Amino acid sequence: SSPEPSSQVEPRADEKPAGYETLVVTSEDGITKIMFNRPTKKNAISTRMYEEIMLALKAASEDKSALTVLTGIGDYYCSGNDLTNFTDIPPGGVEEKAKSSHILLRNFVQCFIDFPKPLIAVVNGPAVGISVTLLGLFDAVYASDRATFHTPFSALGQSPEGCSSYTFPKIMGSAKATEMLVFGKKLTAGEACAQGLVTEVFPDSTFQREVWTRLKAYAKLPANTLRVSKNIIRSREREKLRAVNAEECITLEERWQSEDCMNAIMNFLSRKAKL
Amino acid sequence: SSPEPSSQVEPRADEKPAGYETLVVTSEDGITKIMFNRPTKKNAISTRMYEEIMLALKAASEDKSALTVLTGIGDYYCSGNDLTNFTDIPPGGVEEKAKSSHILLRNFVQCFIDFPKPLIAVVNGPAVGISVTLLGLFDAVYASDRATFHTPFSALGQSPEGCSSYTFPKIMGSAKATEMLVFGKKLTAGEACAQGLVTEVFPDSTFQREVWTRLKAYAKLPANTLRVSKNIIRSREREKLRAVNAEECITLEERWQSEDCMNAIMNFLSRKAKL
Amino acid sequence: SSPEPSSQVEPRADEKPAGYETLVVTSEDGITKIMFNRPTKKNAISTRMYEEIMLALKAASEDKSALTVLTGIGDYYCSGNDLTNFTDIPPGGVEEKAKSSHILLRNFVQCFIDFPKPLIAVVNGPAVGISVTLLGLFDAVYASDRATFHTPFSALGQSPEGCSSYTFPKIMGSAKATEMLVFGKKLTAGEACAQGLVTEVFPDSTFQREVWTRLKAYAKLPANTLRVSKNIIRSREREKLRAVNAEECITLEERWQSEDCMNAIMNFLSRKAKL
Repeated sequence: SSPEPSSQVEPRADEKPAGYETLVVTSEDGITKIMFNRPTKKNAISTRMYEEIMLALKAASEDKSALTVLTGIGDYYCSGNDLTNFTDIPPGGVEEKAKSSHILLRNFVQCFIDFPKPLIAVVNGPAVGISVTLLGLFDAVYASDRATFHTPFSALGQSPEGCSSYTFPKIMGSAKATEMLVFGKKLTAGEACAQGLVTEVFPDSTFQREVWTRLKAYAKLPANTLRVSKNIIRSREREKLRAVNAEECITLEERWQSEDCMNAIMNFLSRKAKL
Repeated sequence: SSPEPSSQVEPRADEKPAGYETLVVTSEDGITKIMFNRPTKKNAISTRMYEEIMLALKAASEDKSALTVLTGIGDYYCSGNDLTNFTDIPPGGVEEKAKSSHILLRNFVQCFIDFPKPLIAVVNGPAVGISVTLLGLFDAVYASDRATFHTPFSALGQSPEGCSSYTFPKIMGSAKATEMLVFGKKLTAGEACAQGLVTEVFPDSTFQREVWTRLKAYAKLPANTLRVSKNIIRSREREKLRAVNAEECITLEERWQSEDCMNAIMNFLSRKAKL
Repeated sequence: SSPEPSSQVEPRADEKPAGYETLVVTSEDGITKIMFNRPTKKNAISTRMYEEIMLALKAASEDKSALTVLTGIGDYYCSGNDLTNFTDIPPGGVEEKAKSSHILLRNFVQCFIDFPKPLIAVVNGPAVGISVTLLGLFDAVYASDRATFHTPFSALGQSPEGCSSYTFPKIMGSAKATEMLVFGKKLTAGEACAQGLVTEVFPDSTFQREVWTRLKAYAKLPANTLRVSKNIIRSREREKLRAVNAEECITLEERWQSEDCMNAIMNFLSRKAKL
């Protein structure tokens, strides 16, 4: 029997439109595919990448595709917020940085809350931080059995975002949600699926083939009906989710200026500098 | 060892009260049993059957039984809305048909929202469409391992009803709910149980015996206490569920007049005519 | 290999502060541990014990610990409300007793709703009644595989409390919640975990060792960040939970004066008297 291809997608420079530095975006077979493309940084989200994801989602919401997919290029799905974002301190100091980060984060999460078409995560490898919490706002989540789900907020002096303080207890109950969001327990793909965060798990060796076969079939369903059905499930919650997002960002602005957080980030960056 | 009896209940004409054409209704051992009785149509719900189920639920809510059970006669639990309902177009045309269907559906679902005693589904075989979505309004759901759960709304240009756009994400999280309600994924009984839609699954060979033994024991609990306890769990949600039902029916009225839906039903009926 | 120690904690008189008759409370390694200490009564909650748990929670909320844990001494976690509480009828009769029980219960549950730090249950053995329903208000629940979860309210003519009429359907969906809360189905630890009521199950032989190792690690996370993160998950629900608690207590006050309940308790006490 021939060896299975790896589930890892290699970056293909020819697919990269001029406009994006941190993403590769394609659109075919009724599917717009937004790929995180900082594989050497484990697809950590830089300030630039936050902005580009928002632009790509805006474009996808207006194109003719039926489905929009997010996935990662390389080993990782996404390692979360790039902590080096915290080193770029403006003249106004930590307080100003915390304020602008609050606004960026709120706008970013809002794009996921308001996205009008079925939004699907193809989690090809480890997911960390905000790339995990946002999954509660996706309409389907397919994971390789190589994927893990980890939100080490407390160790970093931070608190949950991406509406996870609302969506996770709703999905898995608070006894499971707290262990992830507050105590930073890392879940396997199988555990995340049993708890309802993930729709289905596939062996890594057949992951890409199985998922894309399925998604291409789903993309043939009538696009307008898909929009209407997503909308009737999600629209009722949008106002609530916006309020949750605002509240989480206010709490994080305060956390980012706390001793707990500043110590943790200092430690992280000094360990990194020594490598 | 002697062979197990099949879980399929044969229609027994002697149990059929004069009033019902599409149901068999019995009441004994503290349990009122409403049985779908169109086995040659896979228990598809005709306009007449919608009306009769509402009458049977009204009668059950007022009788002395402690529990009310819905189940199917024959191979199927229920194959959902009888699509030939759509062929009976009134003088007012498709618009009038969509309006009257909206009212019928809203009243029908309302009977399940408001039902005052524990309501139990004994899912003896495949369940489709509205017979699946309504399960979110039942207080317990027992399934044979022969049962499947399928809501192919999008392929028919339609959108979720039976309050499923609210109850399913609450029960299983939106990553699992969307795959069922929007993409039409068919679940096995075991999958539906793992996701919380089904209370327990039994082997088909012992299904009827095990379920009725259990239900007879439950029916011996004090009937008034059962009502009070169901009520404290459910009454808090009733107003919300009524609003969801109204919203889903408005959306469906619009869907039924859409090109997506009319094409799908025309295809279905022409395939059927050729058989 | 040496034999594993039993998961059962023996009462240690030297740890019992003067103030508590029914509890042992310790505080070390950042963890305040409140232990039910009526092992010969299967840790049934007497009126005195309700009062002492409230005092112990108040003290824990104000001490320097990061986490608060509830657990049982002996074979049981807790067998629920001590039914002999019902025999202490005041001059005002059953009506006055029902009224004062309502107030005691409401205040007791309120302490769990409002508790400001991560609250963890270490369920060392069977849990019954209110000790089960309250678990929906805990932030993590670890269970020995010897634990069971049982709420036989209907057989006693009573109805759900501890906010379970709201938290249980949210955690496990109503098809599973009703079987527990209305029909009194007893769950194994594994079942309770699959349904999201329990965070994780451990073999009894290694239960104490594994759980305390984990909790000591969690207690090293920054305490203030833990409070903030619990708060953002829970505070949004507090007003709702207070209303649910009030409603459940009103219903129970009425239930306690019902024939269903008085018959059941009379039977229970007369069986007990004959032993």
